[in-house]
Order: sequence, then C-alpha cells, then structure tokens
Amino acid sequence: MTIRYPNGKKFIPVQQTKLPKKSNPTFSNRGKSLEDELNETNEYYLSRQLAVIHKKPVPIQIVNVKYPARSAAVITEAYFKTPSTTDYNGVYNGIHLDFEAKETKNSTSFPLQNIHEHQMTHMKNVCVHGGLSFFIIKFTILDRYFLISYDSFEKYWVRMIEGGRKSVTIAEFEKDAIELKPGFNPRLDFLPALPKLH
Amino acid sequence: MTIRYPNGKKFIPVQQTKLPKKSNPTFSNRGKSLEDELNETNEYYLSRQLAVIHKKPVPIQIVNVKYPARSAAVITEAYFKTPSTTDYNGVYNGIHLDFEAKETKNSTSFPLQNIHEHQMTHMKNVCVHGGLSFFIIKFTILDRYFLISYDSFEKYWVRMIEGGRKSVTIAEFEKDAIELKPGFNPRLDFLPALPKLH
Repeated sequence: MTIRYPNGKKFIPVQQTKLPKKSNPTFSNRGKSLEDELNETNEYYLSRQLAVIHKKPVPIQIVNVKYPARSAAVITEAYFKTPSTTDYNGVYNGIHLDFEAKETKNSTSFPLQNIHEHQMTHMKNVCVHGGLSFFIIKFTILDRYFLISYDSFEKYWVRMIEGGRKSVTIAEFEKDAIELKPGFNPRLDFLPALPKLH
Repeated sequence: MTIRYPNGKKFIPVQQTKLPKKSNPTFSNRGKSLEDELNETNEYYLSRQLAVIHKKPVPIQIVNVKYPARSAAVITEAYFKTPSTTDYNGVYNGIHLDFEAKETKNSTSFPLQNIHEHQMTHMKNVCVHGGLSFFIIKFTILDRYFLISYDSFEKYWVRMIEGGRKSVTIAEFEKDAIELKPGFNPRLDFLPALPKLH
C-alpha cells in the first residue's frame, strides 16, 4: 500500500498530512493528535501482523435519521454520549488489551478530570478477568509520552477520591510509568513496553 | 442493583421491558432483538463478574456539529459507516473474545450477504493473535440460536467465494455449531459454549 520514493521517505497520503489544528508546523509530527499517532501505529501493527488493535467508534445517541430516496441514510439529530469503556482494545500475543489514550497541554501534571469513573471501573474489571489495561498519556507541550498500567495509575485516582491532589505529576509518571519515544514508523511503538508493565 | 420480589421474579426496569417493534406479545421475549438479548446477557455477566463484554458503538461519519449556547453539542449531519470489525468484544477468563451477532428471518439458511469481507478478515486476524472469534446467529422465525467458531464458519465463506451457495443451511449449523437455548437470566447464556468450540 505504501510507496517508497528514491529519497527514502514514505509516501503519506494527503488526508494524513493535513495539519491538525493548533499544530506547530516547524516540527514534523509535532501537533499530530495522539489519536492519529495511535491509529497509524495500530495500522502498522496490523499490517505487520503484530497485533490487532482498533479504536472504538465514538458513542452517539441517534435521535433522527432521514432516508432520502436513492441515497444514503442521513442522521440529522444525534448527541455525544459519555463513553463507558476505553477508547482502544484488541489482542496481542493472546493477551486482551484495553487502554485509554489522553493528551494534556499541562506541562507539569496530568489532570485526573480527563478520566471518567466508569472508565476506571471498566479497566479494573478488565484486569480482574485477565486482560491488560493501561493508559497512554501525552504531554503535548513537552512532547513526552508515558504508558502506565491501570494498577500503577489506580493509587493516584484513590488519592484524589480521598481528597488529595487532582492530578498525576510528571515525576510520578517518571517513577511509575514507562516513557515511550515517538519514532517514524511505527509512530509510537508501545508493544515493547507491555511485558515490562507492573 | 436488582431487587427480588417475593414471587422470586427479578425486577426488570421499565426500559428493558418495552416491547420491541414487530414483536409477538403472546410469547414472552419472542421478538426481542438479538442485540437486546446479548446486551442483557452481557450486563448479567458483568454484574456477576463472569466476563467483561461490550457492544461497540455503531461507526458514524460526523459531518456537521452545532454547539448551541448552554446546551449539549448536536450532531446535525452524519452518516453510517460500514463496520470494519465485529459488534462485540471483551475478555473472559483471560481470553480475548471477538464476535459478530446476526439475525435472519430466513427459516432454512443464513444468507452470507449479512457478513462483510473485512469482518471476516478481522476475525481471522483475531484468531491468528490468540483471540477467540465466533458468530452468534439467530433464526428469528424458528427461535433458534447457534454459536459457531470463525474456523468452522470460514469454509462456508470460502465455498461462496468459490462460486458455491451463498448461505449456510440449518443442517450445517446443526453439524458445526453449538445450539444455544434462550433462558430467563441470562437471556442467552453463551459462555458455557466457548470451551467446546473447535
């Protein structure tokens, strides 16, 4: 599917090169959303038969649909629903993977308000049933990425519930998470981190 | 969460007892859609901590969203996308599950036009990576349910591609699938069939 040009660069189709909003065009790939980076990575994994991981569609409450003659059904009224599970799941090496990906513009800590309580419950359930559940957190301004297991993350959630701080600091990620280094292809190679999770 | 009344029947909230369209109200549960039956079953499994299985949201291409002041964002134009994976997935006893559920009004065979080629590809990939992939097929008129592994189903798909019949007969399901008997709670207990899959 991909064509390599003589300069060694991979051909990237137009729809993937469009600049995302608020990007800094002086740094290649900077400003690409974490979702785009993970989708590219998962496509790479699938094409190399390394893992089968997909992003779930955004949950929508459909209220009205029109069926025009001779053309596709049009949804004319719908609302976003709060997700009750995580964004991504799949299977890797016989292991069920289930993870949430979040980015923050904060450069000192990750605000826990980005996570819903039912997502935490869901991730805990996944662990109980033998799946592997984790977060990938991107600090966009720092251009740093961390992968942290649900088990390691949970104590910060509990700390907040018990009245403590409402975020997880960079230093805490450095201690409890695995830092991922973005690359070219795959963009964000997270599979090698999984066996190191605790 | 559930209250048992003195007559031993479980309290079922109103939204679960509403009659689906085209139902035959003289038979309890008859006419309930397979999706409703599986959602109830998966809720039961989750509440008893037996498995974590969710239906994926329907994939939608969002074209227009309005943001009215002081109220929720409204999607005013969107289209249904062809799903590239299956409807359901989750984790059970450490095993990644991935399955497609389909019902047919045909009473002699299941038409293969109900399945998309990329769904077959996806299910094959899931098997390659150590997940368990299968179909649950409901013959609505017969009120019969079959669970068939991807591996057993694949030969009928291949038969169609090679120019053979475009459906799988009831006799073939009787030979290759496990018949599920609908019950009260869980409505369609499919987990016990999984260890018997071949």
